[in-house]
Amino acid sequence: MLVVGIDFGTLSARAVVVRVSDGAELGSASVEYAHGVLEPEPQWALQVPSDYLDALRCVPLALRDAGVSPAEVIGIGTDFTASTVLPVLADGTPLAQVSSSPHALAKLWRHHAASSQAVRFNAVFADEPWMERYGGLTSAEWEFPKALQVLEEAPDVYARMGHWAEAADWIVWQLTGTYVRNACTAGYKGLYQSGYPAPSLLVQLHPDFASFAAQKLDTPIVPLGTRVGGLSAAGAASTGLAEGTPVACGVIDAHATVAACGAASPGQLVAVMGTSTCHMMVGSSLRPVPGMCGVVDGGIVPGHWGYEAGQSGAGSILAWYVEHQVPASYSAAASAEGISVHTLLSRLGSSKPVGSHGLIALDWHDGNRSVLVDHALSGVIVGQTLATRAEDVYRALMEATAFGTRTIVSAFRDAGLPVESFVAAGGLTQNPVLMQIYADVLGMPVSLIGSSEGAALGAAIHGAIAAGAHPSISEASVAMGSVRRDVYIPDAARVSAYSELYAEYVTLHDYFGRGGNSVMHRLRADPAR
Amino acid sequence: MLVVGIDFGTLSARAVVVRVSDGAELGSASVEYAHGVLEPEPQWALQVPSDYLDALRCVPLALRDAGVSPAEVIGIGTDFTASTVLPVLADGTPLAQVSSSPHALAKLWRHHAASSQAVRFNAVFADEPWMERYGGLTSAEWEFPKALQVLEEAPDVYARMGHWAEAADWIVWQLTGTYVRNACTAGYKGLYQSGYPAPSLLVQLHPDFASFAAQKLDTPIVPLGTRVGGLSAAGAASTGLAEGTPVACGVIDAHATVAACGAASPGQLVAVMGTSTCHMMVGSSLRPVPGMCGVVDGGIVPGHWGYEAGQSGAGSILAWYVEHQVPASYSAAASAEGISVHTLLSRLGSSKPVGSHGLIALDWHDGNRSVLVDHALSGVIVGQTLATRAEDVYRALMEATAFGTRTIVSAFRDAGLPVESFVAAGGLTQNPVLMQIYADVLGMPVSLIGSSEGAALGAAIHGAIAAGAHPSISEASVAMGSVRRDVYIPDAARVSAYSELYAEYVTLHDYFGRGGNSVMHRLRADPAR
Repeated sequence: MLVVGIDFGTLSARAVVVRVSDGAELGSASVEYAHGVLEPEPQWALQVPSDYLDALRCVPLALRDAGVSPAEVIGIGTDFTASTVLPVLADGTPLAQVSSSPHALAKLWRHHAASSQAVRFNAVFADEPWMERYGGLTSAEWEFPKALQVLEEAPDVYARMGHWAEAADWIVWQLTGTYVRNACTAGYKGLYQSGYPAPSLLVQLHPDFASFAAQKLDTPIVPLGTRVGGLSAAGAASTGLAEGTPVACGVIDAHATVAACGAASPGQLVAVMGTSTCHMMVGSSLRPVPGMCGVVDGGIVPGHWGYEAGQSGAGSILAWYVEHQVPASYSAAASAEGISVHTLLSRLGSSKPVGSHGLIALDWHDGNRSVLVDHALSGVIVGQTLATRAEDVYRALMEATAFGTRTIVSAFRDAGLPVESFVAAGGLTQNPVLMQIYADVLGMPVSLIGSSEGAALGAAIHGAIAAGAHPSISEASVAMGSVRRDVYIPDAARVSAYSELYAEYVTLHDYFGRGGNSVMHRLRADPAR
Repeated sequence: MLVVGIDFGTLSARAVVVRVSDGAELGSASVEYAHGVLEPEPQWALQVPSDYLDALRCVPLALRDAGVSPAEVIGIGTDFTASTVLPVLADGTPLAQVSSSPHALAKLWRHHAASSQAVRFNAVFADEPWMERYGGLTSAEWEFPKALQVLEEAPDVYARMGHWAEAADWIVWQLTGTYVRNACTAGYKGLYQSGYPAPSLLVQLHPDFASFAAQKLDTPIVPLGTRVGGLSAAGAASTGLAEGTPVACGVIDAHATVAACGAASPGQLVAVMGTSTCHMMVGSSLRPVPGMCGVVDGGIVPGHWGYEAGQSGAGSILAWYVEHQVPASYSAAASAEGISVHTLLSRLGSSKPVGSHGLIALDWHDGNRSVLVDHALSGVIVGQTLATRAEDVYRALMEATAFGTRTIVSAFRDAGLPVESFVAAGGLTQNPVLMQIYADVLGMPVSLIGSSEGAALGAAIHGAIAAGAHPSISEASVAMGSVRRDVYIPDAARVSAYSELYAEYVTLHDYFGRGGNSVMHRLRADPAR
């Protein structure tokens, strides 16, 4: 028995054909979105909804790649970037089909043009007790600021839309004919905490926004793994699968990865490490943890609280460093060896004992999400001498991201949520030097996701639940998820040395991040200077 | 009437032929030292004394370049790097002529192999009141640590030497047959403060070192500008000048530059800005200023106190940055324009308003001399984001060196020594962007030395005093020195903006440099980690 998981990413959709019994990946295929990302203005990022439907062609391609028959497929799951959100008519027709306004298109997760709206939400929501679950901050990437931008900049589009739909839910609607919201996006991106923010709050943002949640978001919210319906005739035509095949509700890509790591139970922290890092953990109780991106009931696994933390910068900092601060000699040496500059710097930097570079960095080049929730913070390097070389700084930056992860692990532990294992997924897991640094800094073994298609595998697991092939995400995760346990083992001497450096990191973290010296805010305060 | 100034630099000697009446430079020539710098081991830097004599060939070459007759030359002055020091027999014969020990050679100023000895001097001298004049620190570059290294590592050489002579005094001895010490090197490099450190102190370093000053340094100390004697027959043969021509006592190169800038009177701060920066000012009274390299009675001008401060890193930090942190695209762009990377970065960095890069740096990549006197300090950059570019960091580093200079200017002022003008000399004056930053950071006009041969011109001025052509260094400096007044004028808006950033610099300076967070010391503490 097989399931299909479809991962709707930023630039393409990828389908993976997975065996229900053990999670074996038999084949895959991807299709790029025809229009990619539209960026009509700075900070904008739009997509064309029909591209998502067109990209469903990846399913028959994946079946062919696997060499299997559609008849063997018993369930379908999907995951999506989020909050990628679009205005639709009451029947699900994208506004983009009836309006030429750019606001009729889907707003991709990284559409940042609603920043000023987000600031206003933060002011209005400041005293709400549930805001603690979001670290006190509404992101410009989420549903409410993006919707308010539509209302304020294109009121006609706002008025015409029947629903402000997460693409994660819309694509399932298109496949099944049934519109429900999944608990994951509703909670993490839609501010749903047993209910949406009250009209008395929303009206403070705009007189016509009071009814936003009731009018534009209203539809049942279902637990992850729910069978939304069977594949419709249209959905069957698009995917080449049998009409009536069970389809699971949507889920955010990162959160689907937790199941793919076999880590859908309390105490297992999953870090999806790429440009930024998303940390997710299932908890059996609700505890206040500072600086969370979101704490959502059933947000990762039904019946548990899903905790999500984040580091704004991770791979982005290393990429920035390599692009803007590394001299030609390194590019030439890497090129001569046929390796990347990242690989070269990692290797050179790791040849010396912990701390011998004499550097401590703060990984705030793109601000700090967890645990300080302060986007105006910035990077620091302390300890440079005339003997400092590029590999030294690169290593200090790698270490800084690991120290940043340790502050998050500590925050969970301090809140009474034990972190018993650390599972890494995402592109940065390709760097063994970085992974060893994480093991040594955290003082914990680092396990790696076994699949290179974590989100799609997670979606497939959700499809298996919907098909009734496994009783729960936790159990399906164990059977179908894939993890390479304890690939990187901490070294006691390095753990000890890094604990000393971590103490230095914490001192600087608190000095620059908790008001000891607010120089970073002042440096950003006056752009006209 | 003409004088000849001879500047003995690190790699060569350069003679300049100068008109006594107005300081006009009529010709010059240089001769490289045949053996350059010998570095038999790390930290070592030796020279061959006969190279200095051989390099006197630059004098007849300069006369030829000027197209003048030797008969027109009425005086000779020399300056030298310091402390460049050598063991000689009682008659001035270099030990190098009678011993093959490396310790028989001259130890160049940047010979740093006596660091462990310097540390011991600091402990023994710690409570001596005169140590305040040296910022509490004996440098490994100075006469005493270098001599102790000879005693401990080559006792035979130590025993045989009649004098431990500054090359600045030895070369004058070779020209005149008379051995005296000049007040400048004796004070700044020989710890002479109305007397040398007492035998009761010296004996604590080594039983045989008690008599060091009395035995190995003993010779009359003379004021700057003193006529040591007439050119000897041998000196005449070496230089092509007339026997009997008056020869001035030696002087340190940087300190000679003060006269060359026309700044040999109180309130005029001269900064010789190169790899490091040396700040010199004449004061009419003795005041305690923190972190001085030396405060010497008659050390710059007879009858006045000479104050010397320093920044360990200046051009060295910018050079380090360009070599180790600037990506290939900049080298390529600079090359295409036929300019240096420094010029390119300076121009790019200066195109934006003050503070718009959002960065603050501390210029301690090579430690901090004035005013903290802490070699274990290191560099800091605060405020980097993913938008930070190489030119932003470069500008922040330029600004950091200017802020460092401002702390020194403030220290002088706080001590009751007004700083009324700022005159810059040295290689960094070639960078107009850097010079404007200094004007804006200091809130003072920046004047530039008019001569490209500052030290040699200063030596020539000393020669004119020795010849009796001018009554004093101060007066000769006005007549013969060369300064371009107020080349860079501070801009009121930028001065104001930089004052805000300077306040941030001071906060970080004190936090990292005065015990708020001694992380830099800890990062350097355990090299085995």
